[in-house]
Parts: sequence; structure tokens; C-alpha cells
Amino acid sequence: MQRSLFRVENPFLANTLLGDGEPAEDGRISRRRLVLVDSVVDDIYGARIHAYFAAHDIQADVRIIRADETLKHWATVEEVLAAMADFGIDRRREPVIVIGGGVLCDVVGFAASLYRRGTPYVRIPTTLIGIVDAGVGIKTGVNHLGGKNRIGVYAQPMISLLDPSFLETLTERHLANGMAEILKVALVKSASLFTGIERATTLGIKAVFSEPSHAAVADALVNESIHLMLEELQPNLWESNLERCVDYGHTFSPIVEMHALPELLHGEAVAIDMALTTGISLRRDLMTHDEAHRVLSAIRGLGIDPWSSALADEALLWSAVVDATRHRDGLQRVPLTRGIGDHVFVNDIAPVDVHAGTEFIRAAVPARAI
Amino acid sequence: MQRSLFRVENPFLANTLLGDGEPAEDGRISRRRLVLVDSVVDDIYGARIHAYFAAHDIQADVRIIRADETLKHWATVEEVLAAMADFGIDRRREPVIVIGGGVLCDVVGFAASLYRRGTPYVRIPTTLIGIVDAGVGIKTGVNHLGGKNRIGVYAQPMISLLDPSFLETLTERHLANGMAEILKVALVKSASLFTGIERATTLGIKAVFSEPSHAAVADALVNESIHLMLEELQPNLWESNLERCVDYGHTFSPIVEMHALPELLHGEAVAIDMALTTGISLRRDLMTHDEAHRVLSAIRGLGIDPWSSALADEALLWSAVVDATRHRDGLQRVPLTRGIGDHVFVNDIAPVDVHAGTEFIRAAVPARAI
Repeated sequence: MQRSLFRVENPFLANTLLGDGEPAEDGRISRRRLVLVDSVVDDIYGARIHAYFAAHDIQADVRIIRADETLKHWATVEEVLAAMADFGIDRRREPVIVIGGGVLCDVVGFAASLYRRGTPYVRIPTTLIGIVDAGVGIKTGVNHLGGKNRIGVYAQPMISLLDPSFLETLTERHLANGMAEILKVALVKSASLFTGIERATTLGIKAVFSEPSHAAVADALVNESIHLMLEELQPNLWESNLERCVDYGHTFSPIVEMHALPELLHGEAVAIDMALTTGISLRRDLMTHDEAHRVLSAIRGLGIDPWSSALADEALLWSAVVDATRHRDGLQRVPLTRGIGDHVFVNDIAPVDVHAGTEFIRAAVPARAI
Repeated sequence: MQRSLFRVENPFLANTLLGDGEPAEDGRISRRRLVLVDSVVDDIYGARIHAYFAAHDIQADVRIIRADETLKHWATVEEVLAAMADFGIDRRREPVIVIGGGVLCDVVGFAASLYRRGTPYVRIPTTLIGIVDAGVGIKTGVNHLGGKNRIGVYAQPMISLLDPSFLETLTERHLANGMAEILKVALVKSASLFTGIERATTLGIKAVFSEPSHAAVADALVNESIHLMLEELQPNLWESNLERCVDYGHTFSPIVEMHALPELLHGEAVAIDMALTTGISLRRDLMTHDEAHRVLSAIRGLGIDPWSSALADEALLWSAVVDATRHRDGLQRVPLTRGIGDHVFVNDIAPVDVHAGTEFIRAAVPARAI
């Protein structure tokens, strides 16, 4: 991680961008760069970003792109492709730079990977979910025909630059959105990371990510989460092994998220999936009652409602299992938590499990009008 | 090469399709296949294709797609993606099968590579250009924003099945379209293949590819061309080396082709580029007058007009050099023929060369109204 990439006195980003790759055979190094910035990021950091590039003599052509889950579709990819064509990008020595959340990172990574069959790109995620999830790994893509990330490619960025100082201005809701992915990793791999999340919810996640006195707590959460994600992703970059514990929280959530769009952020849909599958683990005696309720408390401690109207439609939820099976070569391969910090894969989820999962959430939040 | 893939008595295709890959962990082999067939191919071979799959108990869902250079764009990719979604393809064990010309192979290869970030596909090219060019190598893609193949991916098919028996029904113009790519390979790599092309033009290319008595001539042309192409492509699949002699004929042709659309087929545009660069080689004493005119005669012997109205616009032609330079990391790297069957790369093409090239063609075809 690199703090304060855009502080003018910090030469790291400029050195990285200009030093990437060898100079061309003719010795020329291009100082032109196409920079795609999320409109929300531009509102807060636009002036600083411009000033940084100017100070370091990088001829940045900055284009502002609106991006959220409802705009994660081909039309936004086309917008980026048009910017690349208009800029007249050199496909080998002028990597595209994306500065934004997980959605924009995924969209720009996709567009760059298609343009002239592959133009390098540099990823600078600005949200917590961007840093711990979209910013690691090599997946790009957009939603298509109602399917979550239905089209995309595996395409490694030239580099991902993770700068936690962006998190200071993130809203509590977007912090929770990223915390949900950290919670996912914790539940399948690390009881101690889970304890760290519980502590963060007690301190208040906005405080954790903005008050200097809590910086060590924030850094530990982010670092440990990335470390554990990479441990899973790196030996299996192209997903030749379809039993991926990082798919935890991603069996029901694609359908829930697409169904509820634009109501839910990605991490919120993942949290709902985790609440549901916690209920399934409880039913199967993979977790104790106490453990299951600690999970639910952690989700609610992040300010995320574990219930969504999509959960009332069990046929819809079942279609998610069918689609995941198709995606995972004919077997369900659903990761379920075993206690907290461990997991098993199962292939026999049945509608009755789905029902038990939704009942678990209903029972835990009895006061709400469901 | 495999003759008569769709003769019911020939088990090769069925065995290949059903035997591809390991059976899934649960032992199931899917016999369902999504098959995308070019509408022109369907007119001639549709019944035979249906009968073959039925006889071999393959549940083929055959979809007819219109494809030519004017339809080589994202909308056709979306048509294929919709067919994949509608079929409910299993991304690991139900490879998509494409049966058609170079355009459809490129479009389906692209769509399959994006769907769920990569679904395997099997390529059965039915045209000469499909067999000797699109059917070898791993490039997929479509035109975008006026740029030839501006978006795409490198994506290896599970297998390419090359069946020359399709060529018997190909029109003379489409045979010439493929012969242009064979001529390209001959000019940069093989004097003896060039002699073979001259002989074929004397026999008449329609006769060569349809009369059994000439089958050996046809096979020799196709086999030698593919052999020489693979010799260049295989050590450089992802084009890390940008000096590619197979780019011969592909410096000016993308602009000429896109400018003249739908007037020219791809191979026709490549032939025009070769006539132009032959003029440049002549100017630079890389070829003798006699050699240059043999090349021009071969192009005309294929029935291809080496002149196009796009050649009158030298500023347009120059923009092609600028774009190729951008595509080739800042250097022109233009392959030029040296004699017949050899090549050099140059980085100093100037507008005066382009002018000499067009003048060479004008002078050689003085009778036409230019």
C-alpha cells in the first residue's frame, strides 16, 4: 500500500507511471496518459489529481466517467473505448489509468483489455471495496442481459496502486460495502480477522477509517484481508479450480443484487447472501447458534440490513443455485462456513436449505415488516 | 485437415466434440451444443449439418447468424451472447461451435471469450480465407468506431477443424479473397508457393478448388500456406514481437477496407495493399521491375482489381501509416517484400513512397478510368 499517491511531494506515482516497462526501441518515453476518473472522485479529488500530474510533467488527459452498479454495462465500456480512440492511445507505452471505485475499475479494465486486443492499464481504486476486492485479482467485466458480470475477461493490470488515504472521505455506507468483502474473507478463512471486524464495528467504521488514532486498526483489517484474498487467488488466477472459498457470499448475491438494483450495493448483497448461508450452516450443524448470531450481529453492526425483499422469493433464490451450478461446471460447489474462519464445499443445497436460510434471517429480525 | 466433416458416416467430428476435455467430476458428459451457422452456409449445408448432429445423437441447437464485413461489429457479438444466454450454456463442458467464414469465426470467438469471462469454442471455417487466415491463430474481434478489428481478444479455440470440402461451393470471388492471404504469405516467405499461385491462376482458381483432378494442387496451396503462417504465429502468439511479416498487406488495407466498405472483401483490400507496397519495394530497388509486375499479374490473375478509389486519397493512406505506427509501439515496422519470397522491415516510409506506390498501380493499369 502507498499512502497519499497524489500528494505533490510524493514522487512514487509519477516514477511508477513513467518508469513502467522499458523505453521503446527508439528511446522515446511517452509522457501522455489517458486518465479515467470516477465523477464522485473528481468532485473531491479532481483538483489535486490535476495538480499532481501537472507538477510531475505528465500530460494527463483526464476524462470524467459516471459509474455505479446501474451503469456497469456495455454502454459505459463504449464510453471508455471512445475516449481511448479519441486520445489516440499507443497500445504499448501509454497505459490507461483508472481512478475510481470497483465498478469503474472493472469497466476500464475490460475496455482496455479489448482495445486493440489489449492495452495495459493501471488501477487506482478509491473505495474500500475497490481496494480489498476489485483492486486485487484479474477479473474485469460488466453486467449483461440481466446477468451479473456476465461478460468480461481475465486481464492483469500493469499494477494496482492501493492508497488507503482515499478512504478518509468515503461515506459510512460505502465503507460498510467494502467491510462486507472483508467479512467474507474472515468468515471462510480467519477467526482473528473476524474478531477485528467486531472490534471495528464497536469503534464505528467511519471513525476507524478516518481518525488517525485508529489507522493501525484500519490498516490491519485491509492488509490482512488482501493477504488472505491473494493467498486464494494467486494459485488459481484463471479459476481452473472451481472450488473457490472466495466465492463465499457470491452464490445468491448476484441474483439478489441484480433483482434489487439499484437498491443494493455489491457488498450489501454479499452480506445478505452471507446471512442466508449462515442460516444454512446453522441448519446443517456446521455452526452453533451462538456463532451464527455473532455473524448476523457483525452484519448489522456494519449498518447493513440482512433482509431484502428478494429473499421473499424463494424460486428466485433457487434460480441462483441453478445458475451457480452452470457457472461451476455442473456441481454446486457452494462454500459454507464451518464455525467462524473455516469452510466446506457442498453440492447438495436443496430448496429446503434456502427456506431455512431465509427463516433464520426473518426470525432474527422479527420486528421489521417483512 | 479433415475432409467431409459432416458426412454422416464420418465419426471424426462427433468423436471430437464429445471427447473434448475430461468428463465432469460427476461423470456426466453433456451432449447439448450451441451451434452458430453463417446464413450463407446454412442455405447450402443446413440440412446436412442438422442430419449429422441428429445421426450422432448430439442435441444441437442451431442458430443462424448473418455475417459479413459490414456486420462485423458489436451488435452481432450481442446477438451471439444472447444466443448463449438463451441456450443456458455450461461454461466448461458445452463449447460453442461456429460454422462459417472468417467474420463469423472472429465474432463468435470474441463473444465466447467474453461470456462468463471465457467459454470454450470450436471453429469450423467454411471459406478459404477462414481456413488459411481466421482459422489459424488466436485473434478474435470486431470493427469498432471505424477501426478495423479495433476491439477483440486473443483467445485460442478448443480446436479448429479445417475441412476443404466446403470450398467446392465457394464463389470465385470468395476463393480469390482467400487466395490473397495465401499470396501474402508467399510474397514474404516462399518463392515456390508464389509459383504455385501463378499456376493456379492459369488453371483457374474455381477449377482448382472444385475439380477432383486438381485436388492435389489445391491441397498443396492450402497446406503450405497454413504451414508457413503457423511458423510465424506460433512463436509469437501474443505479438510480443511486433515485427511480424504476416502483417504484410496489412498496413494500408485496414484503412482502405474500412473506407471502401462494403465494396471490398478483406482479401481484396489486402491485395490492394500488396500492389501498393510492391510499388514501394520497386522504388527502393528491393524488387526488380520484372518481379513487381509478376506480383501485379498474380493479383489480377485472381480477378482482383489492384486499384481502389481509396488510393486516390494519399492523405488517407498516410493516416494508415500513422495508425500502424501507433499499433506497433511507435515504430512503423512495415514489412516490404525483397524480391519474391523474402522481406525486410522498414521504419522510414514517407509520403513520397506512398505516392510511388499508387503511381505504380496507375501506370500498370493505364486503360482504366481513374
